[in-house]
Amino acid sequence: MAEAKQLSGAGLRGQVAGKTALSTVGVSGSGLTYRGYDVKDLADNCTFEEVAHLILKGELPNQQELDAYKAKLKGLRALPQALKDVLERIPADAHPMDVMRTGCSMLGNLETEESFDQQQDATDRMLALFPGMINYWYNFSHKGKRIEVETDADSIAEQFLWTLHGEKPTELHTRVMHASLVLYAEHEFNASTFTARVCASTLSDMHSCITGAIGSLRGPLHGGANEAAMELIQKMENPDHAEATLMGMLERKEKIMGFGHAIYRESDPRNAIIKGWSEKLSKEASNPALYDISVRCEAVMWREKKLFCNADFFHASAYNFMGIPTKLFTPIFVCSRLTGWAAHVMEQRSDNRIIRPSAEYVGVEFRVVPPISVR
Amino acid sequence: MAEAKQLSGAGLRGQVAGKTALSTVGVSGSGLTYRGYDVKDLADNCTFEEVAHLILKGELPNQQELDAYKAKLKGLRALPQALKDVLERIPADAHPMDVMRTGCSMLGNLETEESFDQQQDATDRMLALFPGMINYWYNFSHKGKRIEVETDADSIAEQFLWTLHGEKPTELHTRVMHASLVLYAEHEFNASTFTARVCASTLSDMHSCITGAIGSLRGPLHGGANEAAMELIQKMENPDHAEATLMGMLERKEKIMGFGHAIYRESDPRNAIIKGWSEKLSKEASNPALYDISVRCEAVMWREKKLFCNADFFHASAYNFMGIPTKLFTPIFVCSRLTGWAAHVMEQRSDNRIIRPSAEYVGVEFRVVPPISVR
Repeated sequence: MAEAKQLSGAGLRGQVAGKTALSTVGVSGSGLTYRGYDVKDLADNCTFEEVAHLILKGELPNQQELDAYKAKLKGLRALPQALKDVLERIPADAHPMDVMRTGCSMLGNLETEESFDQQQDATDRMLALFPGMINYWYNFSHKGKRIEVETDADSIAEQFLWTLHGEKPTELHTRVMHASLVLYAEHEFNASTFTARVCASTLSDMHSCITGAIGSLRGPLHGGANEAAMELIQKMENPDHAEATLMGMLERKEKIMGFGHAIYRESDPRNAIIKGWSEKLSKEASNPALYDISVRCEAVMWREKKLFCNADFFHASAYNFMGIPTKLFTPIFVCSRLTGWAAHVMEQRSDNRIIRPSAEYVGVEFRVVPPISVR
Repeated sequence: MAEAKQLSGAGLRGQVAGKTALSTVGVSGSGLTYRGYDVKDLADNCTFEEVAHLILKGELPNQQELDAYKAKLKGLRALPQALKDVLERIPADAHPMDVMRTGCSMLGNLETEESFDQQQDATDRMLALFPGMINYWYNFSHKGKRIEVETDADSIAEQFLWTLHGEKPTELHTRVMHASLVLYAEHEFNASTFTARVCASTLSDMHSCITGAIGSLRGPLHGGANEAAMELIQKMENPDHAEATLMGMLERKEKIMGFGHAIYRESDPRNAIIKGWSEKLSKEASNPALYDISVRCEAVMWREKKLFCNADFFHASAYNFMGIPTKLFTPIFVCSRLTGWAAHVMEQRSDNRIIRPSAEYVGVEFRVVPPISVR
């Protein structure tokens, strides 16, 4: 065997592992683009369904295409009875990402992607079904309610809030959810997306790829930062208390989630957008101080550490203002990032070679098995 | 952002993506070693539990350690009722790897790995439970039977055959299953193991890592070659018919599964071992010709293409001689490879950096979102 090439960094950092036409992250001049469009431009001007269409099919839809896509998705919300039965057997104290992973995997048994011709349909089904799936489990396990998931909601954003709360959300809330779903939709070769591509490279089915990606997003180094940010700010009573709390944490060198980024160096282009929505939501919220607290945290972290808020930090207050339980923050990430994952699976399939790197062996030398009597 | 380094090959081929002390593949002088021991030495002299102990804990057990480990595993076979309920809702025509993936994921809801202190216990539970899990589903969905999975079987090898057939297997069959499980236990940075490591690198839980790995092993470029080999040889009536069939397939340039390997160049060290067991099984089998057919296939492929049998080819006849349905071949692979996957997860956790490579962007240039009315 030829000598394998040694990579410089752990975790394949800075190593090109493949090609993509889906997004750019941290390229100078535009922090994050999906198929060439700046994420801010998309979040300001498009609904999530338009962006899903862009990511999955290559272009933003015209009105006719958008109407057709939304009608298709609306028709795919029903949960199969066997999937409901599974969700009802998952306890209330389960990790909600384990619920997402199991629901996705179960769906793969019931509606298996039998050939790659079905990849768009399999993806659309998950896009339409996931919001109702997690909220079916949440309402059943936490409140004993079997909810109706086939609502009249006009969009995935509205469907999430409607199935969570059992009523049509306000226009503002729906608008914020659209923006949030757009911001989280795609982010190049992050660990969960790379998981999906490694799985796809064996020519496995779409549900296996997405199930694997959910499992990776579950890890505390990946998804979950907005939940951690929420846990932090909900302990703070007002901006001055926030400042004192952070100064103490910095003094004790404690980890503070929601700041900085592995690739972005000066700011996260998604922050300003969700921050703006958080401020708007705070005007009508019962706990508006959460926004002022978050703003003070941002100022302190920049002043003390030159660390900027990433996409997750103001998501915490924004989601909280909309009455979303903290434990459902990362499942919302799944409902959004599913678009990016599935598009990467499709891209991997279109020009595939199985992803099979080498390893540097650091174990013991060759040895002979001793009889068990002399071990 | 610094310019990312371009890798030479697609699929990270020949690129070192990390360190391992678990195995070597294709190093000259010894085709495959687990922690320094040749796989043939292990398959000839050890049971699967000894090898699982070696891979997961670093050393072969002495008699006392082995007895304790087997007793522990024997006590972990029961299926939680909620898991049985899930298995009973998976239809008979589901892909058995989807059943494994879903069962593993569901278990993660019921018995979540809450901290890495529990990683060995979580792994042992899956090792003990997986054989009964797949056979519970198989017997329920295909025969309407709710089987007892808490058998008196002395080992995982025996447990698999016992829960499949509903009776204690012969000593020969159990011995072959041990060897088979040893052969499939570990294989460095293959795609499913790499999936598990990418997931582990986010510090996600063990069930997420194993669920993801199962999804990758499901792909036809990875697991499933022994099933494909079975489908091939079961159409062959005798050695001459086998030769004619293969010559026709080669003429038509059809893909023939079970031959050659991405890394091994001259032979697969696992082949001679399972071939020997297949021959022994054939002596008492009702369809012994399957062995002679397989031998002829091996000769023809070497003569015509200089392609050798890999680990999968003689597994097909060996499993068939033991009355194992073809669709359960890859789930057996899971019951074995679980050891390697889990050991890689533990290794990744012990010196972790999140696996997050870069991508080469090949998409459209920067552009501005047009209003929907002019798209």
